[in-house]
Amino acid sequence: MPASRSRQPYELFYWPMIQGRGEFIRLALEDADAPYRDVARAPGGMRRLEKLLASRGAALGAGFAAPFAPPFLRSGKLLIAQTSAILHFLGPRLGLVSNDEKVRFAALQYQLTIADLVSEAHDVHHPIGVELYYEDQKPEARARSRSFIQARMPKFLGYFEAILARQPRNRRSYVLGRHSYVDLSLFQVVEGLRYAFPRAFGRLSKRLPLLTALHDRVAARPRLLQYLRSTRRIPFNQHGIFRHYPELDEPTNARARKAR
Amino acid sequence: MPASRSRQPYELFYWPMIQGRGEFIRLALEDADAPYRDVARAPGGMRRLEKLLASRGAALGAGFAAPFAPPFLRSGKLLIAQTSAILHFLGPRLGLVSNDEKVRFAALQYQLTIADLVSEAHDVHHPIGVELYYEDQKPEARARSRSFIQARMPKFLGYFEAILARQPRNRRSYVLGRHSYVDLSLFQVVEGLRYAFPRAFGRLSKRLPLLTALHDRVAARPRLLQYLRSTRRIPFNQHGIFRHYPELDEPTNARARKAR
Repeated sequence: MPASRSRQPYELFYWPMIQGRGEFIRLALEDADAPYRDVARAPGGMRRLEKLLASRGAALGAGFAAPFAPPFLRSGKLLIAQTSAILHFLGPRLGLVSNDEKVRFAALQYQLTIADLVSEAHDVHHPIGVELYYEDQKPEARARSRSFIQARMPKFLGYFEAILARQPRNRRSYVLGRHSYVDLSLFQVVEGLRYAFPRAFGRLSKRLPLLTALHDRVAARPRLLQYLRSTRRIPFNQHGIFRHYPELDEPTNARARKAR
Repeated sequence: MPASRSRQPYELFYWPMIQGRGEFIRLALEDADAPYRDVARAPGGMRRLEKLLASRGAALGAGFAAPFAPPFLRSGKLLIAQTSAILHFLGPRLGLVSNDEKVRFAALQYQLTIADLVSEAHDVHHPIGVELYYEDQKPEARARSRSFIQARMPKFLGYFEAILARQPRNRRSYVLGRHSYVDLSLFQVVEGLRYAFPRAFGRLSKRLPLLTALHDRVAARPRLLQYLRSTRRIPFNQHGIFRHYPELDEPTNARARKAR
């Protein structure tokens, strides 16, 4: 983890075994080369995370806000939970969004829409209860995957494709007209959906040339490339938000697709 | 709608027949006595809303961010979508949160956690697909309601009860130690859950004395009281987020509750 600057490193608290929602924060910190500690991935860190969570933040002392769930970020006297709030905080500090109010609010609303898509992608494998196993809600997951693949995923991704299409011709792989944390988050969404639904996303992505170009632009950024090739990038697996269950992807041939 | 001040009224764009997510914005504007127009409830307003949505915001001119869905708010040169982003913007302007960074971020993260709870409350009656009818997903809705009532609702509400309990003794009906938009949103959550799940919420609320006191304090605020008694407050119904389907509430007697 780079820690070249003199300022106090950020402390990110997130589950150590998955990309999950914490990955949106990791990508921003890594892309900006910001000094940070991924607390729960160091010895004793998981206990610190759990203690802080159980104490409703009070483990740091009075005056700290209480996180409901990871990820949360500590920066000096601030403890911020909720992915979109953390990125809204980090954005200008990391040079990943301009300080202009209009741009910051545009970034926040786009990030919140990405968060909605991420929640729905999660609920495909957990439509009945987040505290239950996938194995206990498989038929319902299959039904929800149809809705996600046929209605929701195209709606969300088509929306972002349209936003990119509104940009001036040479800025069409930047949601806000220049590189921002929103682009990093969209990169992650493309990575995740491509992993979870290779057939459905593969077919849909033919209608998403700008989003695909954005993904490829972000993936080629030198610091990000270095991160993605490092052991700091946790591989996708069956515990995170984006999971690959072949039975939840669309069938290979068109007739079976229609019959679903 | 009060419009006593000289400044340009805010324009709120939201579905005219339901409380829904727009109600969190209406409550903030009403409590603060802010001048605003509930666009889609006036003649021709629904067409304006739909046009703006379809044009990805471009109907206002270049430079405006594009909303994915209502609610969205216009304030001068800004068009902001996503309930939590709108409240983050309005908060300091309406005197409903301090301008202090620490407090504003605490408010934002609490509001985002409320938004998560609201989404889960919605998904109880739409676990399989938001674009399908409730009648087409009734057995799945019943299964999801068990999880919501037994696990999720107590977890979220217990979290906010614990946050209130951390306040100094005379500030325990204020999430941030003084009145804020977060309190208005929690009031709305209590209203909604009590309407949707009268039996389950009635039983649970005995363990939520501080949250209940917060609800009652907010309900007694003069401007809010006036609003709630006016025709501007749309009654709960079977089209919004909080819906009362008796079969999704918990059974009346303890044995049937256990057997579910």
